[in-house]
Amino acid sequence: MKATAIAPSNIAFTKYWGKKDEVLRLPENANISMCLSNLLTTTTVEFSKNYSKDEITVNNKALKQNEEKRAIKHLDRVRKMANINLKAKVMSNNNFPSGTGLSSSASGFAALSLAASCAADLNLSEKDLSILARQGSGSACRSIPSGFVEWLDGNTSKSSYAIQVFPPDHWAIADVVAIVSEGKKEVPTSVGQQTARSSPFMQIRLAHMREKNEKVKKYIAEKNFKEFGELVEQEALELHTIMLTQTPPLIYWTPGTLKIMKLTRHWRLEGICVYFTINTGQDIHLICEAENIKKVKSKLSKLDFVKNIIINTPGEGARFTKNHLF
Amino acid sequence: MKATAIAPSNIAFTKYWGKKDEVLRLPENANISMCLSNLLTTTTVEFSKNYSKDEITVNNKALKQNEEKRAIKHLDRVRKMANINLKAKVMSNNNFPSGTGLSSSASGFAALSLAASCAADLNLSEKDLSILARQGSGSACRSIPSGFVEWLDGNTSKSSYAIQVFPPDHWAIADVVAIVSEGKKEVPTSVGQQTARSSPFMQIRLAHMREKNEKVKKYIAEKNFKEFGELVEQEALELHTIMLTQTPPLIYWTPGTLKIMKLTRHWRLEGICVYFTINTGQDIHLICEAENIKKVKSKLSKLDFVKNIIINTPGEGARFTKNHLF
Repeated sequence: MKATAIAPSNIAFTKYWGKKDEVLRLPENANISMCLSNLLTTTTVEFSKNYSKDEITVNNKALKQNEEKRAIKHLDRVRKMANINLKAKVMSNNNFPSGTGLSSSASGFAALSLAASCAADLNLSEKDLSILARQGSGSACRSIPSGFVEWLDGNTSKSSYAIQVFPPDHWAIADVVAIVSEGKKEVPTSVGQQTARSSPFMQIRLAHMREKNEKVKKYIAEKNFKEFGELVEQEALELHTIMLTQTPPLIYWTPGTLKIMKLTRHWRLEGICVYFTINTGQDIHLICEAENIKKVKSKLSKLDFVKNIIINTPGEGARFTKNHLF
Repeated sequence: MKATAIAPSNIAFTKYWGKKDEVLRLPENANISMCLSNLLTTTTVEFSKNYSKDEITVNNKALKQNEEKRAIKHLDRVRKMANINLKAKVMSNNNFPSGTGLSSSASGFAALSLAASCAADLNLSEKDLSILARQGSGSACRSIPSGFVEWLDGNTSKSSYAIQVFPPDHWAIADVVAIVSEGKKEVPTSVGQQTARSSPFMQIRLAHMREKNEKVKKYIAEKNFKEFGELVEQEALELHTIMLTQTPPLIYWTPGTLKIMKLTRHWRLEGICVYFTINTGQDIHLICEAENIKKVKSKLSKLDFVKNIIINTPGEGARFTKNHLF
């Protein structure tokens, strides 16, 4: 009753912000993302009668109380499905910083869902895994399928899950992540989302999300990078303006984020076709075609405040490691 | 036929962004501001048959071609009203940097309007001066009356001007300006305004501006600083939200702006009642009650990227210098 799984973080091209159901984590709108090849969480779960309580470590450290509670609640979901009541040992490792807008909760809950369900001897479909992961952290459902993914706009738990729109090899684009972290964000995403509707602009946003998602899928299908990039950048700005106009306002950008946002436009004027997107955090994602990765990396590496650069291509979703069963 | 005038810049508590008439500079919405005691333009205008063309200097330098054209057009308005066709010599000096969001065009066109109309022997009322100034630069009309000012929501040139709402001594508040300039803004305000309606959120903004203005006037009347400050800060974020979601997006903040925006909240948590506002530029205005000026100044002076701090109280509008006639 032990299994190890790997799951990727993902980058949303259209964003998930605000929930129609807080408990079930049903998003206000459908949204589209890409699994990231190099932002990964590896998680081992073992259920055993030898454990008298759930023992959970992330990067070899105990979790904060509220985070631990959330992870145990997720194990409870798996135990209920498998009809077991054994406690678990969970060891999870991220190969990237958490709490800075790189969606470590997405990769974390996706890996936990796959490892725990396997360790509990459940054999869940991709759809059911995505539904399970969503309940731990909304965007984790997008880290189950591979490649380009859509989180469908369902009104029930059973209809709110992610599907593959295109496989990883459909389009050779990249997400070059610039780590500009200066500490963890002050307000966690799950808290900030609760007041999304206090922005006077949220209703307008929701009214045009369906059309925006159709456009994004069309541009991905056509591999129309320029239109795609412009829409993705506009969408990132829109997400952050919703947050800036909430009560209380949320300012996730840091000076490093802002500098790169402005530089991106200059780099385009210099002829490098690159666009930014930003999640609910400070680190910034530069989206380009594969042929421009080197140029973008070279630009970023000249900035002294960029602490790390991680190059991602469209990646696999949640999967087992080799020899994942013990 | 020579006169010298001084006019203040002003800080908008509710913002002017977008025009219903581009040529007449009629704003999309009424807006409320305060004249600033220490951000001043002093302008001398002389009409004389000795000049074969208009000679204009600002801070002892010639203007760029488009700026010169705009100033000459303003002199033409005055010449037309006075029925003269003499050319003019104009010398204008700002005691603060221009093109960084400190509204040097407001103080500049207000001082030019008063000096030129006096030199042309016109004796304009405050209302007519405000109407004249507005045609040079919209927000210049707010630098004609003293103290707390409202730019009325008129649909014609004759009904679009600013009036005093409260005199300067009504309320002892301050605008502590932090100069964080890193060069002039990339897109001038007058260009950026032309695409204000491309933001999907502009209609919603306009629909609630009347209510917002009534609130601001109520809080000023009641001297309710906390409600006033919260609304002013929210309004600044909303203005920048509109600009960030325009096509193309306008990003006027710089890292210094963003740092102070975030610090302001921290300073409030430490017990200093201070709120920020930002015009269409990078410099940031910290609004506080007079009793907190020292504390705010002390906080700002510890930041190495703040190049200058200018303390303003509610100021006089456009006026003549002593011995202004030669």
